[in-house]
Amino acid sequence: MRGVVLNGPGDVAVVDRDDPRIIEPTDAIIKVTAACVCGSDLWPYRGVEKTEGVAPMGHEYVGVVEQTGPDVKDIGVGDFVVGSFFASDDTCEICRSGYQSRCVHAEPMGAIGTQAQYARIPLADGTLVATSGMPDPDLIPSLLAASDVLGTGWFAADAAQAGPGRIVAVVGDGAVGLLGVLAARQLGAERIIAFSRHADRQRLAREFGATDIIAERGDEGVARLKDLTGGLGAHSAIEAVGTQESMMQAIRATRPGGYVGYVGVSHDVRLPGGELFFAAVHLHGGPAPVRRFLPELIELILTRRIDPGRVFDLSLPLEDAAEAYRAMDERRAVKALLRPWPEEAPGAGVRGS
Amino acid sequence: MRGVVLNGPGDVAVVDRDDPRIIEPTDAIIKVTAACVCGSDLWPYRGVEKTEGVAPMGHEYVGVVEQTGPDVKDIGVGDFVVGSFFASDDTCEICRSGYQSRCVHAEPMGAIGTQAQYARIPLADGTLVATSGMPDPDLIPSLLAASDVLGTGWFAADAAQAGPGRIVAVVGDGAVGLLGVLAARQLGAERIIAFSRHADRQRLAREFGATDIIAERGDEGVARLKDLTGGLGAHSAIEAVGTQESMMQAIRATRPGGYVGYVGVSHDVRLPGGELFFAAVHLHGGPAPVRRFLPELIELILTRRIDPGRVFDLSLPLEDAAEAYRAMDERRAVKALLRPWPEEAPGAGVRGS
Repeated sequence: MRGVVLNGPGDVAVVDRDDPRIIEPTDAIIKVTAACVCGSDLWPYRGVEKTEGVAPMGHEYVGVVEQTGPDVKDIGVGDFVVGSFFASDDTCEICRSGYQSRCVHAEPMGAIGTQAQYARIPLADGTLVATSGMPDPDLIPSLLAASDVLGTGWFAADAAQAGPGRIVAVVGDGAVGLLGVLAARQLGAERIIAFSRHADRQRLAREFGATDIIAERGDEGVARLKDLTGGLGAHSAIEAVGTQESMMQAIRATRPGGYVGYVGVSHDVRLPGGELFFAAVHLHGGPAPVRRFLPELIELILTRRIDPGRVFDLSLPLEDAAEAYRAMDERRAVKALLRPWPEEAPGAGVRGS
Repeated sequence: MRGVVLNGPGDVAVVDRDDPRIIEPTDAIIKVTAACVCGSDLWPYRGVEKTEGVAPMGHEYVGVVEQTGPDVKDIGVGDFVVGSFFASDDTCEICRSGYQSRCVHAEPMGAIGTQAQYARIPLADGTLVATSGMPDPDLIPSLLAASDVLGTGWFAADAAQAGPGRIVAVVGDGAVGLLGVLAARQLGAERIIAFSRHADRQRLAREFGATDIIAERGDEGVARLKDLTGGLGAHSAIEAVGTQESMMQAIRATRPGGYVGYVGVSHDVRLPGGELFFAAVHLHGGPAPVRRFLPELIELILTRRIDPGRVFDLSLPLEDAAEAYRAMDERRAVKALLRPWPEEAPGAGVRGS
């Protein structure tokens, strides 16, 4: 099969990889209908995160089940499925408490690499959620978004306790931040203040439900937000970047007793204890347990109540993965969808498709 | 009046200070029935926290109202009152959300210094809670504990979501940690694992409700706790020290999705973002909004359902404050009560009284 690998910083290639096969009896093999490039894929692409040798890439996916191991009971051949970026058994005590991304048997899908024509899915019954029937092709981008960026933005909004009566600040205008806006709106937030300096992202943030936009960042952005909130700050903040600046911006934007939900994969962050102590905020985040939210998100998408697929502003055949990475790295695209089977054409309606 | 000051590291003195007087119309003046030395007073005493010039000391207090400003409506002369270490109006949006320690008009009582015969209490109606009638003298230590260490341990247990079915780890065996144990027990925790190396504190922890004691600390202590919890860690952790080691111990002792309540005043703590991210815990803490819990805690004490005053294992006349600091600094005492009016003898039953 064809699949994307990273040979080293900046060097994305599409190569022949071995077809995946069932290894554990709980595995399934899917034919990948659509995959995509994640903001977190840019960390190794930029060399900020080290990789060793040739690394398979990708952890977001939707597809159709081709084969199942003998212990797979709930998922069947032919099912259209959505899964998250961690395989999880969905039965252990940690999964049952809603933290499937930290399942005691969790396996990172990024090590398998879903930017490919096929993928092995460990713990298929726990990991995958099947739709009832084949979804309409125009819903594929939204279902793919559920696999990570929507689920992650949703978890951030949930961790930030976004809801009725709440003022929610959103730090980060990438796909996750934008879908954090959508999630906060769905969860009933009263006011959603998005930090963004880019006109196209500001526009999408407003379409997803942002009521206010602040172009300033860092402490200047926080000062603007305080002006908008009677000096108190937001009740909730969604952090979707993962840097020291963005974490401190989210914490400082939040009023005492408020909630910060952080999902930007943390890089070189050291939170100062003294400031955190007197901030008196709630802090919760980490790798989003997307599996917890998948059934609800899939239902919202299939009934066309949300349209998270709009974060994909570029759709390319898998063979053009290098251009997909470049476009995101250069901020020419918010998020790029990859079509492993371009002749079958999912992702219709996205620029480039 | 007589009052305690810190002249510099290690130099506690009891000196003549001006009698306090009403400054703002919302002030009250109380005659201090009992005060005490806080673990956090040891930071400037040890020179870890800088003070400038001669600093009045003390922020815990119970007393009888002597005088009220013209705008004080709910508190009256002769009332026996308990207050917290931050004065708060109890009416602003932050207070109403339960974060009185971060009231928009908060004033730290430590700057006033309650280790004295009298004290000015700002925002008296918001800050103080009056008991109905004069409490029995043997309840004075427990009511004094409510002023800070009990309220702080309670907030930590609340922030850590200690409750039925939960395994709670407690890091720190000072007065706050011990009362965190008591709070977790009252809140219905199933199992309470206290970290303590001192036999006398282990004993008190068990009396307050600890079901298990771990003498090891740091990563070794965490490994022991994991052994006791099927490898998963605690659902809840109370952090009551404020150092890098204690914070990391609390975070590492907590399972993914669990809750860390931290109340040890943070000193030189820098939380590593990457580890915190993948820990996937909830983190909440800060200066405890003790005022939120005072009515409930006072009721529990007056009806003799809890006996937090047992953390006081030393009671001395105010004039002997220097010895009280020394005894706590040298860990000869868990917590020292100070009697500004020794001839009136509150704190009966505590060693030294």
